[in-house]
Amino acid sequence: MSSELSTAEQAAVTSGGDFWHTSAVESAGLPAVTLTDGPHGVRMQAAGGDLLAGVPATCFPPAVASASTWDPELLRRMGEALGDECRAQDVAVLLGPGVNLKRSPLGGRNFEYFSEDPILTGVLATEWVRGLQSRGVGASLKHFAVNSQETDRMRISADVDERTLREMYLRAFQRVVTRSQPWTVMCAYNKINGVYASENRWLLTEVLRDEWGFEGLVVSDWGAVVDRVKAIAAGLDLTMPGPDAAGDATLRDAVEEGRLEPGLLRASAERVRALVEKAGQRPAGGYDAAAHHALAREIAGRAIVLLKNEGDLLPLPGSGVSIAVIGEFARTPRYQGGGSSQITPTQLDDALTQIQAATSAGVTFAPGYTVEGAEPDEALLAEAAATAQAADIAVVFVGTVHETEGADRDSLDLPAAHLALIERVAAANPRTVVVLSNGAVLATKPWDESVPALVEGWLLGQAGGSALADVLFGRVNPSGRLAETIPLKLSDHPSYLDFPGEHGHVRYGEGIHVGYRGFDAREQAVAYPFGFGLSYTTFGYGAATATATATGVEVRVPVTNTGRRDGREVVQVYVSLPGSRVRRAPRELKAFASVEIPAGETTEVVLTIDREDLAYWETRLGRWVVEGGTYHVAVGASSRDIRSEVTLEVPADAARVPLTAESSVGEWFADPRGAELLGAAFAAATADAGTEGGQMAALTADPAMMMMLGSLPLSRMATFPGSPLRAGQLDKLVSEAND
Amino acid sequence: MSSELSTAEQAAVTSGGDFWHTSAVESAGLPAVTLTDGPHGVRMQAAGGDLLAGVPATCFPPAVASASTWDPELLRRMGEALGDECRAQDVAVLLGPGVNLKRSPLGGRNFEYFSEDPILTGVLATEWVRGLQSRGVGASLKHFAVNSQETDRMRISADVDERTLREMYLRAFQRVVTRSQPWTVMCAYNKINGVYASENRWLLTEVLRDEWGFEGLVVSDWGAVVDRVKAIAAGLDLTMPGPDAAGDATLRDAVEEGRLEPGLLRASAERVRALVEKAGQRPAGGYDAAAHHALAREIAGRAIVLLKNEGDLLPLPGSGVSIAVIGEFARTPRYQGGGSSQITPTQLDDALTQIQAATSAGVTFAPGYTVEGAEPDEALLAEAAATAQAADIAVVFVGTVHETEGADRDSLDLPAAHLALIERVAAANPRTVVVLSNGAVLATKPWDESVPALVEGWLLGQAGGSALADVLFGRVNPSGRLAETIPLKLSDHPSYLDFPGEHGHVRYGEGIHVGYRGFDAREQAVAYPFGFGLSYTTFGYGAATATATATGVEVRVPVTNTGRRDGREVVQVYVSLPGSRVRRAPRELKAFASVEIPAGETTEVVLTIDREDLAYWETRLGRWVVEGGTYHVAVGASSRDIRSEVTLEVPADAARVPLTAESSVGEWFADPRGAELLGAAFAAATADAGTEGGQMAALTADPAMMMMLGSLPLSRMATFPGSPLRAGQLDKLVSEAND
Repeated sequence: MSSELSTAEQAAVTSGGDFWHTSAVESAGLPAVTLTDGPHGVRMQAAGGDLLAGVPATCFPPAVASASTWDPELLRRMGEALGDECRAQDVAVLLGPGVNLKRSPLGGRNFEYFSEDPILTGVLATEWVRGLQSRGVGASLKHFAVNSQETDRMRISADVDERTLREMYLRAFQRVVTRSQPWTVMCAYNKINGVYASENRWLLTEVLRDEWGFEGLVVSDWGAVVDRVKAIAAGLDLTMPGPDAAGDATLRDAVEEGRLEPGLLRASAERVRALVEKAGQRPAGGYDAAAHHALAREIAGRAIVLLKNEGDLLPLPGSGVSIAVIGEFARTPRYQGGGSSQITPTQLDDALTQIQAATSAGVTFAPGYTVEGAEPDEALLAEAAATAQAADIAVVFVGTVHETEGADRDSLDLPAAHLALIERVAAANPRTVVVLSNGAVLATKPWDESVPALVEGWLLGQAGGSALADVLFGRVNPSGRLAETIPLKLSDHPSYLDFPGEHGHVRYGEGIHVGYRGFDAREQAVAYPFGFGLSYTTFGYGAATATATATGVEVRVPVTNTGRRDGREVVQVYVSLPGSRVRRAPRELKAFASVEIPAGETTEVVLTIDREDLAYWETRLGRWVVEGGTYHVAVGASSRDIRSEVTLEVPADAARVPLTAESSVGEWFADPRGAELLGAAFAAATADAGTEGGQMAALTADPAMMMMLGSLPLSRMATFPGSPLRAGQLDKLVSEAND
Repeated sequence: MSSELSTAEQAAVTSGGDFWHTSAVESAGLPAVTLTDGPHGVRMQAAGGDLLAGVPATCFPPAVASASTWDPELLRRMGEALGDECRAQDVAVLLGPGVNLKRSPLGGRNFEYFSEDPILTGVLATEWVRGLQSRGVGASLKHFAVNSQETDRMRISADVDERTLREMYLRAFQRVVTRSQPWTVMCAYNKINGVYASENRWLLTEVLRDEWGFEGLVVSDWGAVVDRVKAIAAGLDLTMPGPDAAGDATLRDAVEEGRLEPGLLRASAERVRALVEKAGQRPAGGYDAAAHHALAREIAGRAIVLLKNEGDLLPLPGSGVSIAVIGEFARTPRYQGGGSSQITPTQLDDALTQIQAATSAGVTFAPGYTVEGAEPDEALLAEAAATAQAADIAVVFVGTVHETEGADRDSLDLPAAHLALIERVAAANPRTVVVLSNGAVLATKPWDESVPALVEGWLLGQAGGSALADVLFGRVNPSGRLAETIPLKLSDHPSYLDFPGEHGHVRYGEGIHVGYRGFDAREQAVAYPFGFGLSYTTFGYGAATATATATGVEVRVPVTNTGRRDGREVVQVYVSLPGSRVRRAPRELKAFASVEIPAGETTEVVLTIDREDLAYWETRLGRWVVEGGTYHVAVGASSRDIRSEVTLEVPADAARVPLTAESSVGEWFADPRGAELLGAAFAAATADAGTEGGQMAALTADPAMMMMLGSLPLSRMATFPGSPLRAGQLDKLVSEAND
């Protein structure tokens, strides 16, 4: 560290120098550094250019796709490549990854987020951060926290109970922070339980720094700060964008007038300085755009989820079978969403060209709809039907027209023009494959029943077109798995009754039952379950074993590629604890592995569950607790395709909830020491049978009366006329019970 | 009023004199009066008797049954009869009605509550109170509020958003208070959003007295007061039971030490005195136990809901057909639940005896199970099957074994012994009728598909046995309707994920979507819908009309008894507002009428909806607002059997939400005046096109950018570098917008 910053300089460096840079302090030798949007590409605004246009960069698959690989190693490689591109553009911090849970399929920014499951999200994002930061470029873990919708995102209060917060909405953040120390964390726009994230000391300091040990800097989302003084006091270090001279002045005044502890402003300024100095150690470098395109293609190919493939219609042969390619999206790809993450790609593959290149047979094309056309156009539909009918196989490209930051969707339906196109093409050619392009799940019922094959192509980035051809023609054997449930209909979704809230509040009413947890708890049918995805080969599972280790659980399962093609299986481990003392989902993902298995071979897959991932958040003690008991460990190919299940005894954490005078009679009797003490007290009163106290104590021996009395707190019982307990006894009972 | 009470006397009269009496103050000439449990009978504890045993009184049908009549006139007559019995027992206040919503079918006290709908609850309870109080006896409207479960009831916090509170959980209370002024309101045990009902000034004073104009006394549930000082400060007048000398002293000290406003204690004491004096005007009287038994039988007969009757198996003929009566409950009736409402009946009819009396043909009997036997007993089952097989028709009585205050249920299933009995009897005799005795809904799938007839007999009070015979033999043509949905399975229920909460909190996650509102919103199938019930005749509906009146809406519909028996139809009116600006249930009950229609005749049924019942709670304004628009008025025989639907234009209440600097750009543009002002401000900035402000203003013309900017509060936009708005402009804009 060079010289000490003055209060004015401290105030100045805690807001940006402009839209994309920190503030330089020349007197202190502190340069400005660049922070720019991610997360699936480096979106550098061109000098003098539009706010939302960037210079060319590799558009990797957005998180909706990369998460479907279920492969942390791929995410690490993507992070490394992004780091290289940041170096080339002199970027210090790339604004990603986005690890908010997909609470609702309507979430407008779902395409930037990974999953409805916090472990899957956390594991993948951790490797992405490691990859990026290995290049000397900082990540910005966002949007902290509970920014799972776009509607009224600048003001809305996400009203969430603490167990749900801890186990679901904060869990991926915790994992990434503790395992990969991102340089920065970006606070969200919204409020959490009524307090802006940018002013939330509990969130930004107590949880993030004190509990999780975060060592980096907290930056605001752009425009998330309402009050600079409250923000610094809460632990937010850097307000973006800037400059904000008025806010800087307010900060100085607050320090001078004693309304803000000087040490807090100094600490935030020092965190900015530390970030800038760390960024300064980054070596310059370039990158190989062609290699990055190839990586984008590899990831995209691994992200595609084969949902349906009746009669092995796929893969397509490379010759001898004519193919009708239908749908404008085959020619004009939908490959990313709108908003701050929008990348100007270095090149762009379209599926039509790639399909033409992949087959020696004839390929015809009909657009079927226009890029922006939501309503059916009869001429285009008729042309498409005729084209489909004339070919051996039809491949129809449909999807969502708009998905963007800033707005949630209002439906899961495909546009009417696309639904009509599927209907017409399927009627014209029974050998129809549907390929979807979409940033979040779509309703597939009932139209998917009319086609034999369905490919979930998400938004795949700039190499999506070639990746789709790779999968369609079998050069890549699909291994993508759903990171989010596809429901039968929107109103089935656990979030449905409470999304997106109104009048400034959204109630997270389903609690811990996000995504598949809710569908499982309610025993609901779904269209395609969490974790689901087909392959061009098949896999058989042997008997799993689960062994307790010093740090958790090791699960082993032999998996055999029982088909005739090499392939990749995503082995998933779900855990449950029947009879738990807290409400739990019927199945929770705890470990997974993506493994390549040659045709005919067997691999023993080894998966580890960290003991901490078995814990629940114990609200009465304010900490994580592993409950002891017989856990069910289920190994399968999806959340609803369990192939082998074993049980395992797991010892409990020491975690006794102390008895108090507010503990109920039932709770006292449920605790061995409490039962002994209270039983003795009642017995003493009962012995005195002539008294009212004796009568009431005697009542506790009657099960029907205990139904009535069991929920009575001791302190309340003591105020009843004729109580067997006197108020004066309580202190002694409580202290003896907790000795 | 006689003499002024001293502070000590004031403190003393604000707690009970014993378990069931107020405190007398002889010096002030103030006697003690009796409060005793209801609500479906007068449960006077016998001198020296057990706490839960009472002297004989008429056990009327519990609310689960009386609500199924959907007939306010019957409830009024029940109230009058209860008032007469109170007079006879010198009871000043009868502790009822219980108007908590049935949030979950597991609620242990559901049998004491009316419905999952607040209007149905409120209309029926209002008439019950009017009937009771017409006899000079006070009601106690309970449990105020949100006491919709028994689990941890003494401590749990019901966490409910305000719109849900107002529209669902408080709505019946509001209706009863404003329309029938109960003498007392009983505060609940639980907390509401973290604050004990007994200490909740917002609830007990601001809402109850200031908003609703309640003029009576607030009494605690027995043991609900934690802190006497906080209770008085909140507006709770009378703490029960007593005496509570320690608490009285605390109150005196608090007044003397200035911690409690003396006027508050005085006001509460005066309310006790007013109650006692009002009670003193009650003339003595007796009652005709036989007439009350007949009334109990009439209400019970009207409460029975015929759920299924394939091939017109019912009614049973009075001769020529032998009947096997199966099930111990036919001999040993289940007619009320456990806990404080348990009545010692004046007489008790059993179904077996009544069936024997109703037919000249042979009646045989087999118990099938024992009263407390939950597990199947092969000998009893075999005997039952043989008995059923030997008769022309089998009538099987099954039901719940335990339902009681103090404990929620943990399943909707019949006991295994009863399920086995249905299976065996249905297999032995295809002409099997199942009669249920239960305090809350049971799962009927899949066993109800194995029997042609199903009678929902609830808990029917002391005359249930004769009432069931009345319906089975057609002396009463059934007209009961479900006041609560029977789901296909427990996990389908809107409350399922969040009931009964844990660790001191229960989240009312489904919000306004209680009961049928949730099933309808999620488009779920149910076993039997809200409002459903069959008759031995049939009814045809003509075209409904809806007319706006000065006070609301008048709905008229001609209904024809199209069958050959006289009968009673419950006509129901459900209202919706498609495209409402707030989230609403697809159908909300707003009016209903139970009408007797002779065979072959047509009656024009007239129903009125009060305009206030169309309002929603507008959280931004803190008041009820009727939204203007095209309302759909659906008239039907159940919530899912709509026979005629019309639309009606309803004018809006004046209710503009003021624009502020925290209102978003989108909200400004949605308001005509706001759009004009903000548009002009942006135009001025755009005109200055060389500036950054001009550029940002120009962006607002781009729909994609408005997706991003629309949710930005004006105040936040003003802090952005290059904003088209300056912070200094905002005050003027806001004041002009709201002029």
